[in-house]
Amino acid sequence: MGIVMAKKTKSALENKKGVSISEITNTSKIKSIKDKRKTGINTDALVASILNKDITALSRAITLIESKNPKHLEKANTIIKGCLPYSNKAVRIGITGVPGVGKSTFIEVFGKHLTAIGKRVAVLAIDPSSSITKGSILGDKTRMENLVKDDNAFIRPSASGESLGGVARKTRETIILCEAAGFDVIIIETVGVGQSETTVHSMVDFFLLLKLAGAGDELQGIKRGIIEMADAIAINKADGDNLKKAKLAKVEFNRALHLYPEKSSHWQPKVTLCSALKNEGIDAIWEIILEYVKITSENNYFNTKRNEQNKFWLIQTIEDQLKSDFFNTPKIKSALKNQLQLIETNQTTPFAAADYLLSINN
Amino acid sequence: MGIVMAKKTKSALENKKGVSISEITNTSKIKSIKDKRKTGINTDALVASILNKDITALSRAITLIESKNPKHLEKANTIIKGCLPYSNKAVRIGITGVPGVGKSTFIEVFGKHLTAIGKRVAVLAIDPSSSITKGSILGDKTRMENLVKDDNAFIRPSASGESLGGVARKTRETIILCEAAGFDVIIIETVGVGQSETTVHSMVDFFLLLKLAGAGDELQGIKRGIIEMADAIAINKADGDNLKKAKLAKVEFNRALHLYPEKSSHWQPKVTLCSALKNEGIDAIWEIILEYVKITSENNYFNTKRNEQNKFWLIQTIEDQLKSDFFNTPKIKSALKNQLQLIETNQTTPFAAADYLLSINN
Repeated sequence: MGIVMAKKTKSALENKKGVSISEITNTSKIKSIKDKRKTGINTDALVASILNKDITALSRAITLIESKNPKHLEKANTIIKGCLPYSNKAVRIGITGVPGVGKSTFIEVFGKHLTAIGKRVAVLAIDPSSSITKGSILGDKTRMENLVKDDNAFIRPSASGESLGGVARKTRETIILCEAAGFDVIIIETVGVGQSETTVHSMVDFFLLLKLAGAGDELQGIKRGIIEMADAIAINKADGDNLKKAKLAKVEFNRALHLYPEKSSHWQPKVTLCSALKNEGIDAIWEIILEYVKITSENNYFNTKRNEQNKFWLIQTIEDQLKSDFFNTPKIKSALKNQLQLIETNQTTPFAAADYLLSINN
Repeated sequence: MGIVMAKKTKSALENKKGVSISEITNTSKIKSIKDKRKTGINTDALVASILNKDITALSRAITLIESKNPKHLEKANTIIKGCLPYSNKAVRIGITGVPGVGKSTFIEVFGKHLTAIGKRVAVLAIDPSSSITKGSILGDKTRMENLVKDDNAFIRPSASGESLGGVARKTRETIILCEAAGFDVIIIETVGVGQSETTVHSMVDFFLLLKLAGAGDELQGIKRGIIEMADAIAINKADGDNLKKAKLAKVEFNRALHLYPEKSSHWQPKVTLCSALKNEGIDAIWEIILEYVKITSENNYFNTKRNEQNKFWLIQTIEDQLKSDFFNTPKIKSALKNQLQLIETNQTTPFAAADYLLSINN
């Protein structure tokens, strides 16, 4: 109604020269009206609905973030800006583990535990492979049937994107919206392909590594440097015949973790056993996370880390863009090809070639 | 003499308008004469001397590479270009290991073994700390007394520089000159601080990791991801009471190495025992390197790797420069400070801030 009226008023004013429109002093209101007229999206209303914990509004806004339409992205930026003052309040938890470790079952049971104790939980995913397969690790929602049905849970399949950087940006922005929508815990799942674990690690407060006991799996983890990122390692499927092996693995991981220099968080990473299937040890993991938040909030590491993450994403985004701008310039593209040939035939060095390419860019 | 004459002739020609100087058709000769006049450095002569295995000329040229004087760097680039067609012929070996592992003794004994079998050996170093301490890991030449005295060995302390990238560039360029000077083996030593090992790894054909047995040192290596880079691990000081421990460590390292996926070189990294002090197992290490060169030359990995390294340095140099240009712009510097404050106070996102900074740069 208000929008229709505004439209009429505007038309009338436009047709009558010299009429001041100074009565409309709320510029954000004007923008909102204009926005609505152009794309049918009222960003102010959407922000208000998100702050009002309206899941449909949240979903619509995330879809705008994920859109490739520049007009949608403009809207998305307005919405993000509107939500920003209400963000930054949830605990952000990254969860990783190799396929077969039971991530879906774990997240479902962990999520249900959180909603049972009164928390609202959002589950997002970073899946670099989705940009290729167009699939998504959370796409198969049947994997988390109980959590999906839970009114206090919100599950969103991973954003697809051209690059991990693009996916990361969309996920980070989705976190802001989810926090504005009043979710207390944000879980970000990753399949752990390529750099995805590092990416998730750089956007969460707490990084949980799920492991299985036995089969040399322990060393595999060390090899990929993930252990160094973990704030806790949960050895899943620690039930029945597996229990003994799991207990041994716990000792081994604890030994490995103690070899690392103390983290700047002053947090000593914990190793714990759990069975998502039997719902055992799940509450203990939440207790560990609460302890982490308490300790790091007291020594201010919690906020320091978030600020560092923000700075990291700022610098990373700029660097990615600078590189992409440079190497996608047609002149550079063909010159680069030539220079590489000259290097291969010993006629120039990589450094002289770089100097040359940089000189022709200006 | 010739230079004095050239100067006189030039003056005469200049004073007599209309006199053709077309007799002098060798432009490189003219450049060389001009060069000499300007800085007292005849680059052509220096290149000729380097190709003639003149160590004094080699040292002078490396000093030009390391100079901060832009005129010297211009000369250095000319010399490098002159040496390039004669480079690319040595085996480049990276050697790393924690302090106390016996690197100096090992390199001395290994170098002496190589000169004894008729090889000419150059030893360089990458020491990122040298830019801070202005010291150098090879600065204390007394550590390699015998090798220093050897006519077929050339030891050069590490280039100091503002950045690891700068040091790396100087080292890479020094390799070119050493190869032009007919050295068959180039050894690049690193203390293994920060990224220096990755840097060395990206400029050598073969990466040798020196280790000691016992004291949990094995896992320390795994932690830092160095094992993944190693083409061979030599457990040093494998003598006397240490021998038993060293043999156990060999088993453990072999087990760890087999957990890694096969390298694209199709080379299975070797673990070997040695005692630099007692000159034991040193020849075996050279045999391993020869075997590596043979296998990787046959499957063409050797050249592929060098091309990839060249490409890496080209891209790396460009990226470093792009970043440095951007972030050192005064306008960006102050705007970045503002944007970081806006991020900290939840008024903008890292991504929106990046978009803004990129937009004001143009």
